[in-house]
Amino acid sequence: MDKTDVLIIGGSAGGPVAGITARRHYKDAKVTVIRKEKQGQVLVPCGLPYIFGTVGTPEKNIIPDALLTGNNIDFLVDEATSIDRGAKTVATASGKSIGYDKLVLAIGGLPIIIPIPGNDLENVFCAKKDVDYINALLKTLEGVKDVVIIGGGFIGLEFADELKKRGLNITIVEMLPHCLQLVFDEDFCSVAENKLRERGIGVKTKVQAEAILGKTKVEGVRLNTGEELKADLVFMCIGVRPNTELAQKAGLKIGETKGIWVDDYGRTSDEDVFAIGDCAEKKSFFTKKPSNLRLASIACNEARIVGANLFGLKRRNEGVIGSFATIIGDSGVGLAGLTEMAAKGAGFEVVTSDVKTPDKHPGSMPGATEFRVKLIFERATQQILGGQVCGGGTVGEVVNVLSALIQNRMTADAVATFQYGTHPFFTPSPIPYPIVNGAEVALGKLRN
Amino acid sequence: MDKTDVLIIGGSAGGPVAGITARRHYKDAKVTVIRKEKQGQVLVPCGLPYIFGTVGTPEKNIIPDALLTGNNIDFLVDEATSIDRGAKTVATASGKSIGYDKLVLAIGGLPIIIPIPGNDLENVFCAKKDVDYINALLKTLEGVKDVVIIGGGFIGLEFADELKKRGLNITIVEMLPHCLQLVFDEDFCSVAENKLRERGIGVKTKVQAEAILGKTKVEGVRLNTGEELKADLVFMCIGVRPNTELAQKAGLKIGETKGIWVDDYGRTSDEDVFAIGDCAEKKSFFTKKPSNLRLASIACNEARIVGANLFGLKRRNEGVIGSFATIIGDSGVGLAGLTEMAAKGAGFEVVTSDVKTPDKHPGSMPGATEFRVKLIFERATQQILGGQVCGGGTVGEVVNVLSALIQNRMTADAVATFQYGTHPFFTPSPIPYPIVNGAEVALGKLRN
Repeated sequence: MDKTDVLIIGGSAGGPVAGITARRHYKDAKVTVIRKEKQGQVLVPCGLPYIFGTVGTPEKNIIPDALLTGNNIDFLVDEATSIDRGAKTVATASGKSIGYDKLVLAIGGLPIIIPIPGNDLENVFCAKKDVDYINALLKTLEGVKDVVIIGGGFIGLEFADELKKRGLNITIVEMLPHCLQLVFDEDFCSVAENKLRERGIGVKTKVQAEAILGKTKVEGVRLNTGEELKADLVFMCIGVRPNTELAQKAGLKIGETKGIWVDDYGRTSDEDVFAIGDCAEKKSFFTKKPSNLRLASIACNEARIVGANLFGLKRRNEGVIGSFATIIGDSGVGLAGLTEMAAKGAGFEVVTSDVKTPDKHPGSMPGATEFRVKLIFERATQQILGGQVCGGGTVGEVVNVLSALIQNRMTADAVATFQYGTHPFFTPSPIPYPIVNGAEVALGKLRN
Repeated sequence: MDKTDVLIIGGSAGGPVAGITARRHYKDAKVTVIRKEKQGQVLVPCGLPYIFGTVGTPEKNIIPDALLTGNNIDFLVDEATSIDRGAKTVATASGKSIGYDKLVLAIGGLPIIIPIPGNDLENVFCAKKDVDYINALLKTLEGVKDVVIIGGGFIGLEFADELKKRGLNITIVEMLPHCLQLVFDEDFCSVAENKLRERGIGVKTKVQAEAILGKTKVEGVRLNTGEELKADLVFMCIGVRPNTELAQKAGLKIGETKGIWVDDYGRTSDEDVFAIGDCAEKKSFFTKKPSNLRLASIACNEARIVGANLFGLKRRNEGVIGSFATIIGDSGVGLAGLTEMAAKGAGFEVVTSDVKTPDKHPGSMPGATEFRVKLIFERATQQILGGQVCGGGTVGEVVNVLSALIQNRMTADAVATFQYGTHPFFTPSPIPYPIVNGAEVALGKLRN
């Protein structure tokens, strides 16, 4: 039997980061990662949609194995099939048994397939992180003209935007009143929808796909309105569910959102077994209640917490803030923390502000784009709960500015005197810098 | 005699923001801005160099007067010539006397002219924020081929880079061993110098301009090495000194760095007179000692502090962090907080890290640029003291992420678990996200 100090199951975002963090915090520990994907085959998860229009092949979107080997982490291409918590061993598909002192489950999520007729037809795809699957999809796309995307969340929109770059006819089908409705306030959803339509992407909301039509291959999609959409390919982007089979078989506790239950230090119901990323239950930074947010950046954050905690609790998980951005055409939208709707839904009484300014200064600088920032503050504590932005290429890092303000639970007054820097090419003007200006606007309302 | 509740002297960055903040915090106060510049003639200060290559005319770089009128702020084009603190009045060049309850001095700085022979020749210019002066300079540039820039700080480099876009021969003369040496660690200075040279800009360091040559017009510059540089135009970018004449005449206390002395609330030695921006003394966020940093963003921050404090102290100035960025060609460099050299100079024992990663992910994304982050932590408290970055278009907002971490005095451990978000088009990968990765690297050293 092989024996390792730290065994990590899963080779995508969370697994390697947990390994590197373990290596950094426990110099002498033997750290082993076991994963299903062949050598040089682990995809950067959030880059998945960008393989199809921008990057071109999955091989250009690979997490290098040197990340492991360069950090003195062993890795094994194999599949973990069961955990014996008593003996502290993991059995693998190839018949190995690996002993561990500490075990980290980073086994990710599984794309949700909606149970409608035709969901097993040829040319029905979903967002699977598998090189061979992606290559098959890329090959299929060569003979395709009409694509229906079921699900108008981030991944659905990103696939739509990328496939549009290949000149295909794309229609998004979303059952909610708006695309991105679970992540943005309505007015930001509309911005995104308008951008999609400007790019010639069909957007159908408040409708459900009732059946995928065709004999052996996809030929169309029937909606619950009776309408039939022509389609050579269907892409299901409904989201992922936590992959918990291994944990359940091992008798580990499962949480309310169907993820593997973990405490504030990333430990499962077995103190020697940790779980991170899409397979693990999360709680909200704001309410401490279970959260359904699943992002590669969250997986990496949890990996850094758990990697440090393996042989002694050092880092506490305060819960997920939720910071992310996306792009449609060349327009960015992003969020950190709670939307107004989510904050109100969680019982917060809030005050908001919504300001605009060019993202370079003066506004006559070439390439300047209107930058909009909506901020949400809790009335009682005056703390910042969230921020939504839309603009150009700086959207992603402005989301990170907001995230830093939120993580430090800054009040509107502190945000109003935040010491930002500015430069004509890189940022809005110092005079209306939108985060501090928005905080001042909110303060005006908080005084009333 | 006119009478106003709040009188603000100065119409550039700090003045209007102080006015708007006063309006927001004191709804019923009469707020008046007095300034020298004609209507529609206040330049965005940090945009000054960009008039010459990118924007084209000063008229496209104007702070709109609507910023004042739209916020119900009176403004007066006139020059304040003296303050009678006993009578609480300000006399103007046109013969007016204006009574005030609270007075804000936002009178800026004056470009430093070095006392060498020839400094008064025709075609010697400096960074003056005046529309007519800029237009005269633009006209002069039309007949010019060789330009010598004296002073290799931010403004000097930005002018060099912009004038290069006009196809001129440019040489920068800097007396220190490196350009930008007062703001970056040496290795970052070298990055900037290499970019300048790549763009065909001459960089001469460790030399001083001894004389400007010519009969009536500039013909050249003689260095202390004896070398003579051909020049049709000389640009002096040595920095600014606080404009304190009005304050000194009024008997207000002057600080160690020759700025108007102010307390932690922005009050001068007279409690009814406040000072902000380049004319006011600053102290460091880190050492609480006087600081020579002068930036439009700092002026705006002080304006927001003072504007709220006018009729009751609400906001305390914790001292300047110093956050800024600049561009050479299409490469950005930026800083928040202290450099390693500055931190050591201030007596801190420090630990640093220096990491690189592409600013998009995967690195094969089109337009991805290498992004480098150097972080400085204090050994004793493990708090982040500073960060330097170089990269592409996101440099400015990443500086702001760093500034938010610094302002909240986050420890290396807290930075390592900072909840950033990522997106392939907008940010580095979640796996090596450089700020958190740099914090982990520093933690490794802190443990030793």
